[in-house]
Amino acid sequence: MLMLGRGLDARDNQTKQAREAVTNVEKHFGELCQIFAGYVRKTARLRDKADLLVNEIHAYAATETPNLKLGLKNFANEFSKLQDYRQAEVERLEAKVVEPLKCYGTIIKLKREDLKATLTARNREAKQLSQLERTRQRNPSDRHIIFKAESELQRASLDATRTTRHLEETIDNFEKQKIKDIKNIFSEFITIEMLFHGKALEIYTAAFQSIQNIDENEDLQVFRSSLYPPDHQSRLDIVRANSKSPLQRTSSSKHCTGIVQISRNRLKKDEEEDDEDYDYEDEDEDEELESTKDER
Amino acid sequence: MLMLGRGLDARDNQTKQAREAVTNVEKHFGELCQIFAGYVRKTARLRDKADLLVNEIHAYAATETPNLKLGLKNFANEFSKLQDYRQAEVERLEAKVVEPLKCYGTIIKLKREDLKATLTARNREAKQLSQLERTRQRNPSDRHIIFKAESELQRASLDATRTTRHLEETIDNFEKQKIKDIKNIFSEFITIEMLFHGKALEIYTAAFQSIQNIDENEDLQVFRSSLYPPDHQSRLDIVRANSKSPLQRTSSSKHCTGIVQISRNRLKKDEEEDDEDYDYEDEDEDEELESTKDER
Repeated sequence: MLMLGRGLDARDNQTKQAREAVTNVEKHFGELCQIFAGYVRKTARLRDKADLLVNEIHAYAATETPNLKLGLKNFANEFSKLQDYRQAEVERLEAKVVEPLKCYGTIIKLKREDLKATLTARNREAKQLSQLERTRQRNPSDRHIIFKAESELQRASLDATRTTRHLEETIDNFEKQKIKDIKNIFSEFITIEMLFHGKALEIYTAAFQSIQNIDENEDLQVFRSSLYPPDHQSRLDIVRANSKSPLQRTSSSKHCTGIVQISRNRLKKDEEEDDEDYDYEDEDEDEELESTKDER
Repeated sequence: MLMLGRGLDARDNQTKQAREAVTNVEKHFGELCQIFAGYVRKTARLRDKADLLVNEIHAYAATETPNLKLGLKNFANEFSKLQDYRQAEVERLEAKVVEPLKCYGTIIKLKREDLKATLTARNREAKQLSQLERTRQRNPSDRHIIFKAESELQRASLDATRTTRHLEETIDNFEKQKIKDIKNIFSEFITIEMLFHGKALEIYTAAFQSIQNIDENEDLQVFRSSLYPPDHQSRLDIVRANSKSPLQRTSSSKHCTGIVQISRNRLKKDEEEDDEDYDYEDEDEDEELESTKDER
């Protein structure tokens, strides 16, 4: 009887530990799931802001001088590509980190059922044990009724042992699976994040070139030329055609320089365009709007 | 008179364009500033979630078997380091992207003042012009009064020309600075982001190892041993000391294997500890709590 009592104590302790293990995982996996979900949501919000940035850079680029426009457009395109990767990051984290953690809700439920079944079998065993003792006290000489109570206790004991063994196995599998899942979930998290960061480095390298390639001087000339109305320019062209020295012109030397340089650029670009109003901005504004529409 | 009219038209057109350029920058730099600030805020929110994750992983790790505990702790420490870099990213973006864009509020205000001064000078010139014409009509023969009006017009014209030239210069500088600033702001943005992404790759590489190094089997044995109460174990020890075959023991073969392996581990670790209750968890739980407190 002492050994049985100690055996039951050991078993109860084991069940208690199993229950605590399950409760601990329930608590912490639940927390982890929520915080990871929050992390994914914040990443999605960052992507939203970046999308707004892409749109605004395109809108601003459309109003700018050609080099700045091209540089900003290229940057926005690269940055937009990065947001597609961020979207993939969000979806992957959702599928490979948040979902598996969420699944633990169901797993925990099943384990709790196993625990409950074990406790039920144990209680039945304990009930049969006290019943046997009561029978022995009340009818110490009735071998038949005592034998019946003994065999019922034996059945209950076997059942309790069976469910206990099943619980041991199921908790063992649970623990094994849990360690595997934790390793897997965190490895997935790291891999997904690294994939994104790697892409980011790649994309920003290209985006950096787009910005570095912006020719400040060329754009400045375009801007200066846009400040001079067409008739002012054509008058200057006549002046220039008459081969007068630039010093004879009345505008400030600074602007003169600008105009001369622009003329050089224009000639380089298209020698036939001389009569036309020089306005880069209108030239590809429609094209710009169309390409913005096509994106995303 | 016609040439003067056309000249004034050209000048007005130039001022209109300058005003439009300033308004355009005001609009788009304002938008960019707001969206970049939002992007930085969302990055800070992501850092907050990641900080929560660090805390929760530490809390969970403290309840786990030794290998899992160590792996998760190491991961959390690396991930926490990454959040320090994210914090640096946030501060840098604030200083090198948002602030410079915000500064354009003041710059725009100054340019608007220049524009206003020019318009005031122009209006005065126009007023003097119509005054001269009125004077000529009313007193066509009064050379003195006409001369006075003419010289007043001349003075107003000179002033208008001077402020116009100043406006041209200031708008030219504004445009030059703007292109430079845009290039600079976007280059800074890219550089700051790349720095963070580079660090992230570095840190995740170390973090990945922490997770991969978690020895699943060793932890499983520790878990199994924790399910067996000390007296159960000591009884098994007696059985083992008596050199009986493992087959004579009553527990399932699966758990036997576990216990045998744990005993091996125990011996390897410390041969003198044989009498103590084997519980890895309690062993370094206090140490764990202390180190958690020290962090961040």
